[in-house]
Amino acid sequence: MTTVNRQLILQSRPKGMLAPGDLQMKEAPVPELQDGQALAQVKYLSVDPTMRVWMGVDSYLPAVAIGEVMRSFGFAEIVESRHPDYRKGDRVTGFTGLQDYVVIESTRQSFQKVPKIPFVSDTVFLGLLGINGLTAFFGMEIAAPKKGETLVVAAAAGATGSIVGQIGKIRGCRVVGIAGTDDKCEWLMKDLGFDAAINYKHPGWKAKLASAVPHGIDIDFENVGGEIMQTVLGRMNLHGRVVLCGLISGYNHEDPGMTRLETVLLKRLRVEGFILLDYVPRFMEAATQLGQWKMFGKIKDRETIVEGLEKASDAINMLFTGANTGKLIVKI
Amino acid sequence: MTTVNRQLILQSRPKGMLAPGDLQMKEAPVPELQDGQALAQVKYLSVDPTMRVWMGVDSYLPAVAIGEVMRSFGFAEIVESRHPDYRKGDRVTGFTGLQDYVVIESTRQSFQKVPKIPFVSDTVFLGLLGINGLTAFFGMEIAAPKKGETLVVAAAAGATGSIVGQIGKIRGCRVVGIAGTDDKCEWLMKDLGFDAAINYKHPGWKAKLASAVPHGIDIDFENVGGEIMQTVLGRMNLHGRVVLCGLISGYNHEDPGMTRLETVLLKRLRVEGFILLDYVPRFMEAATQLGQWKMFGKIKDRETIVEGLEKASDAINMLFTGANTGKLIVKI
Repeated sequence: MTTVNRQLILQSRPKGMLAPGDLQMKEAPVPELQDGQALAQVKYLSVDPTMRVWMGVDSYLPAVAIGEVMRSFGFAEIVESRHPDYRKGDRVTGFTGLQDYVVIESTRQSFQKVPKIPFVSDTVFLGLLGINGLTAFFGMEIAAPKKGETLVVAAAAGATGSIVGQIGKIRGCRVVGIAGTDDKCEWLMKDLGFDAAINYKHPGWKAKLASAVPHGIDIDFENVGGEIMQTVLGRMNLHGRVVLCGLISGYNHEDPGMTRLETVLLKRLRVEGFILLDYVPRFMEAATQLGQWKMFGKIKDRETIVEGLEKASDAINMLFTGANTGKLIVKI
Repeated sequence: MTTVNRQLILQSRPKGMLAPGDLQMKEAPVPELQDGQALAQVKYLSVDPTMRVWMGVDSYLPAVAIGEVMRSFGFAEIVESRHPDYRKGDRVTGFTGLQDYVVIESTRQSFQKVPKIPFVSDTVFLGLLGINGLTAFFGMEIAAPKKGETLVVAAAAGATGSIVGQIGKIRGCRVVGIAGTDDKCEWLMKDLGFDAAINYKHPGWKAKLASAVPHGIDIDFENVGGEIMQTVLGRMNLHGRVVLCGLISGYNHEDPGMTRLETVLLKRLRVEGFILLDYVPRFMEAATQLGQWKMFGKIKDRETIVEGLEKASDAINMLFTGANTGKLIVKI
């Protein structure tokens, strides 16, 4: 065990995409443990669009302060413990931050122990059985899909969108994904069973969306916002539901995307914002169901893994250029 | 009975406020009745923000075609009938259009017979027991207010907003209105029992709103959109509800008001659009309750009456300058 803890410090609030100086690598000593603490070595970092929000202003969580270790979700292993609940070798997920080591104190942070599952990579606890799977699960609960309804999800080849669509298929919906490359669209249709997938970078995509939803759209699982959302809303059926899960198209802009609410009014839509943190007491229930679906081949997941803590900044930017398919992870 | 039917024809689609030529007066003969028709003389016209929407593009109803009589809701009296359901002297409300006479055919238009209520003006069927009261009633049903919650309504001195706030008081809410003159604010507080009323034309109104909602806002009954809506959303509590009833601030603009959905996401709000026409089968139920409230002095209504069909165009513009208090009616 090294005695150095590399940490990525938020040095400045990004304008648009992350610039090289926004996150700076600092070396700190690995802290000496006190009673009631455990030391965990971070193995995998979850790279999520919401991190870009945390770099800006206070939102559903306080913004990360300048000079602090950048907040992130991650997977870690206990390497030393003076904490009654943790032993060396225990595996946990939680807010590790972008660093090599994190000190776990029961009073300050919330970490969850996770099991070793045979034949399954540890990274599943960051994606399908982590933030993204849980987000898809509870978001689809809000959507309350009925058999035969049409569900549209954008950022469909992303970690959350790809699971949303597959839950839609399990629930008997017609599922249409919107993604940014032909390869992603092929993956959605051939491997994940989406009924249609549309590359929004093709000029004719709006017409293709229209013909992919011959009975209109009942559910918009909204990850993106902006023009894509507006186009989807334009095809919604009366009394359709919009699960507002993310607005990634706006996160990089000083003046984030605006939406015309006229459509919401005229089509009597219900738009419901939700944040995963409200569902903590039900995480186990959801993870159990998601794990079962995975075991029976009803949900497939894919990962894009970037190696090295020093690549975390680039990895965050990849989310906004669409360079990843499925769950984006930094392996330390 | 005169033999001339004056009609206001939609001659051009307004840009912004109505210009003098947009609605043009035409004289047509009063039609000869055929079997199955009744002729009604229009007494009062309901002036509603949604008329501005109908002048533009297709929405929840088709746009009024150029050259057609402008659509409007109104109160009329049957003067001649060859229709089995109507007799001379019957009083009806429905889509009369901006004209002196309307022919009622069971197959084309939907008119409702209304009773003569002692001590109550016929115009109550356009306001409290008409579009506005019903809109307030069903919108508040969607809002599902609980005792002790805080409700904010803008355009609060308008025909709908003033009833919304009073229903809020009946339901035990703290009710804060937003209006455009000090007189209106005084009326809301002194006569209607609002807990606070804020004139959004005063420079410090946002701070006043903040101090008027010490426990945040649980329900936004949204009639306005734009900056006022954004300011209200900024004070909403987590999991608050937005009943999206109107967006009048945008109706006069080519590029209507946009809204930042970030707040909806981060505060996990539920935004629900609704249109009164979806509730037709329950109109009687709602009108009965509203009438009872009025009878027992729990709801008060006020009217602004403009005389003369030729003033209808000016009257529509009054809605957008806030020149009316309560229900705006054109008396023919």
